[in-house]
Amino acid sequence: MMTGKQRLEKEVTLELRNKYIGPSCKLFYRDDPLKILRASGTYMYDEKGHRYLDCINNVCHVGHCNPYVVSAAMQQMAVLNTNSRFLHDNLVLYAERLLTFFPKELCVCFFVNSGSEANDLALRMARTHTGKKDVITLDHAYHGHVSSLIDISPYKFNHPGGEGQADWVHVAPVADVYRGKYTDKDYSLEELSEKYADEVKQLCDKATKKSGGVCLFVAESMQSCGGQIVYPPGYLRQVYKHVRAAGGLCLADEVQVGFGRVGSHMWAFQTQGDDIVPDIVTLGKPMGNGHPISAVITTREVADSFGATGMEYFNTFGGNPVSAAIADAVLDVIENEKLRENATMIGSYLKQEFNSMKQKHGIIGDVRGQGMFLGVDLVKNRKTREPATAEAAYINKRLKEQYVLLSCDGPSRNVLKFKPPLVFSLNDAKELLEKLDNIMTEMEVAECEVNDAAKSTLNGTVNSHHKSQISNGHCSDIQVKV
Amino acid sequence: MMTGKQRLEKEVTLELRNKYIGPSCKLFYRDDPLKILRASGTYMYDEKGHRYLDCINNVCHVGHCNPYVVSAAMQQMAVLNTNSRFLHDNLVLYAERLLTFFPKELCVCFFVNSGSEANDLALRMARTHTGKKDVITLDHAYHGHVSSLIDISPYKFNHPGGEGQADWVHVAPVADVYRGKYTDKDYSLEELSEKYADEVKQLCDKATKKSGGVCLFVAESMQSCGGQIVYPPGYLRQVYKHVRAAGGLCLADEVQVGFGRVGSHMWAFQTQGDDIVPDIVTLGKPMGNGHPISAVITTREVADSFGATGMEYFNTFGGNPVSAAIADAVLDVIENEKLRENATMIGSYLKQEFNSMKQKHGIIGDVRGQGMFLGVDLVKNRKTREPATAEAAYINKRLKEQYVLLSCDGPSRNVLKFKPPLVFSLNDAKELLEKLDNIMTEMEVAECEVNDAAKSTLNGTVNSHHKSQISNGHCSDIQVKV
Repeated sequence: MMTGKQRLEKEVTLELRNKYIGPSCKLFYRDDPLKILRASGTYMYDEKGHRYLDCINNVCHVGHCNPYVVSAAMQQMAVLNTNSRFLHDNLVLYAERLLTFFPKELCVCFFVNSGSEANDLALRMARTHTGKKDVITLDHAYHGHVSSLIDISPYKFNHPGGEGQADWVHVAPVADVYRGKYTDKDYSLEELSEKYADEVKQLCDKATKKSGGVCLFVAESMQSCGGQIVYPPGYLRQVYKHVRAAGGLCLADEVQVGFGRVGSHMWAFQTQGDDIVPDIVTLGKPMGNGHPISAVITTREVADSFGATGMEYFNTFGGNPVSAAIADAVLDVIENEKLRENATMIGSYLKQEFNSMKQKHGIIGDVRGQGMFLGVDLVKNRKTREPATAEAAYINKRLKEQYVLLSCDGPSRNVLKFKPPLVFSLNDAKELLEKLDNIMTEMEVAECEVNDAAKSTLNGTVNSHHKSQISNGHCSDIQVKV
Repeated sequence: MMTGKQRLEKEVTLELRNKYIGPSCKLFYRDDPLKILRASGTYMYDEKGHRYLDCINNVCHVGHCNPYVVSAAMQQMAVLNTNSRFLHDNLVLYAERLLTFFPKELCVCFFVNSGSEANDLALRMARTHTGKKDVITLDHAYHGHVSSLIDISPYKFNHPGGEGQADWVHVAPVADVYRGKYTDKDYSLEELSEKYADEVKQLCDKATKKSGGVCLFVAESMQSCGGQIVYPPGYLRQVYKHVRAAGGLCLADEVQVGFGRVGSHMWAFQTQGDDIVPDIVTLGKPMGNGHPISAVITTREVADSFGATGMEYFNTFGGNPVSAAIADAVLDVIENEKLRENATMIGSYLKQEFNSMKQKHGIIGDVRGQGMFLGVDLVKNRKTREPATAEAAYINKRLKEQYVLLSCDGPSRNVLKFKPPLVFSLNDAKELLEKLDNIMTEMEVAECEVNDAAKSTLNGTVNSHHKSQISNGHCSDIQVKV
């Protein structure tokens, strides 16, 4: 029945989708959405058999349909799948193994189904442990789709349909050194770290004055929806110090960036130093390679405070033997196939090549990130750093036409966002680079053509951006249609 | 690796569990928890190979490890598992099929991972659609574990660790005709229906006066945590009328009672009449037979209001091709194996036999429910209906010793709660009945023995409860140790 064969014509699928699925649920590439029938490794295949290179599925972490993970799932599903009110070895052995990847203070697990459930539970725990309510979050942050998390997600509450900021929520500027409140144009990284941490301190002071303290500081360890943001070194160290001084807990949201995506470390918060120990860490998306499993990891103290209330926490599916078997298999693959090492190697190569492309293409303003978490920030003008939003959308569309799936994000949607399965290979990297390079070249040629035409017929002024492209040798008399 | 074999001694599993899993996560049978290694149909097997009859797993709906469902999962997992931003036939065909089981007004689906996510989303939709905030919920209700739902779950907020009732939450007495605010001692079912619905009307009036109207009335279509409560006929009809007059939406929470559990209908709200059409229905637990999948079903109007805000709703795992394939397979089994018919047949037989046992055992105060959703309300005294809480716990423990898993619930935890997989057979029913009957007899014998001893040595008074047992012929000179 489910052999990856098409059962409906694509138009019919789309029609039924529009008819039966809530209109709030958006499709990728809305003008011409993709119908994917099967996937393997880093490739997805549409109904016509076209192979797409997947640079965006940060859930299918160890590769689409990884056979080892599928096999583990099958074996356990056939034998037992029940709730965690019964004892089971899979649950406790997975918990024990998972905790070996954390600083020793983080020693208790709660298993849930989604990053949203994890962040909501973390918030409940922080409320219980601190007795406070005020939360400090970063601008552009997204922490999940349930009510309590929309409240602390400026990416949602400050956008269409959002209800604005609650009085117990405090939004700190994200420590974006390229286009944030303070940038590397004016400050050293060390200064930036301090200035951004000071912003959090000011909010701590405000919250303390207003309501006697802070409940929680919440941040992704690298910010994804904000445009693949990497905080300056030392930032979390200073922030955590300020937040703790105000009585608050520190939550590292690793739902998108955890499980070795950053290569050098298992968790992105670790890139800020071995001494950085959050009070709560939330895990999600890649944990089950597509199977719904997520977790909250916390300290004994926080877990015990939450337990001491006497209120049971029961999650029907969380930590069942199938979920645990799958999550365990994912760890096996990360280790056995050395996927962190692969993330580091391929990520470094890509970053180096993106930086080489930056020499060639004026549209590339900044290249950032590490491992399989990279961002290419596109600008109209390197000096002003004006976001090249339309250009990013165009590049994304052209890449899709050439069977490469990438996405744009950030407040101005001008950041090309790279977050593929960790099995992304050198050949995959070369394919992405070559196609991206060609598209940028095409764009420059087309623009120059327009400019040349404008110059000859209208005697128009060539702006500095175009000049820089010309100076890079991409204009003159080349005549290519795009 | 995962072949249902034990990997750790039970004591070690328990030790690791206590060490690594949050103390808020409770085990069944805390004094001597069960370690289950495998399960099939209605049976679960512990590490010693003991076979337990499962009368409580309302998630493994079509039988533990149903091979048809496992096979569908395996086939799809091996081929594609990605998010719903890509078109996929499984999603739209399942949505189309699922909606055929609903009144035509309920025509739009949102897929999520858990009943909690479903109820949270429903609440968000109701807020958006009505522009109101006030929610009317029933006493003892439980609607999920995320923050927003604890607020509307008296089962949580009125219990240890709860923060009490928010000012926008209004708690109506649950329409429990046996031990609620109004009972069948004083009123006919028709009067009870009206009296309980009037309680909701009064809250509507209060909310309207206070804040201009009602956002949502939320209720399980039969209340499970409250003690297997079946509302009197006509109750929902009148309630929905009152709530809608106050501008509110009506949510039927079918997370526990849906998918044919009640036998006669696919959804429990339908037992209140064909004209009963909620504005939102939430589904969960049994939907994927253990796989995390849940849904919100609503009207075009509500879905469009929610869509009109422009805020995207994205659920990473919700409605992925694997979840949809599994849910579709569950529907296949319900239909192919005629499980609704089985629920009706076995449920009727059990109810009839429980009622026969009631003639024999004074401890049985009330037998209620239908299909595979039955409750046996235990009393110390039939006249006062004083809950037999300790006795219920004892029976539950004794059943476990005899390899039958049942549970106790209700505000006084005196209701034996029967909610097994729908494949529960006639032989399973006979096993449950025989063991339950024997245990009740044992208890009566033991009590009479104590009484007889008391009579002969202390010349003590025999209370009416014991008299009724004696009159049932279970005392006299029988000398059995229990």
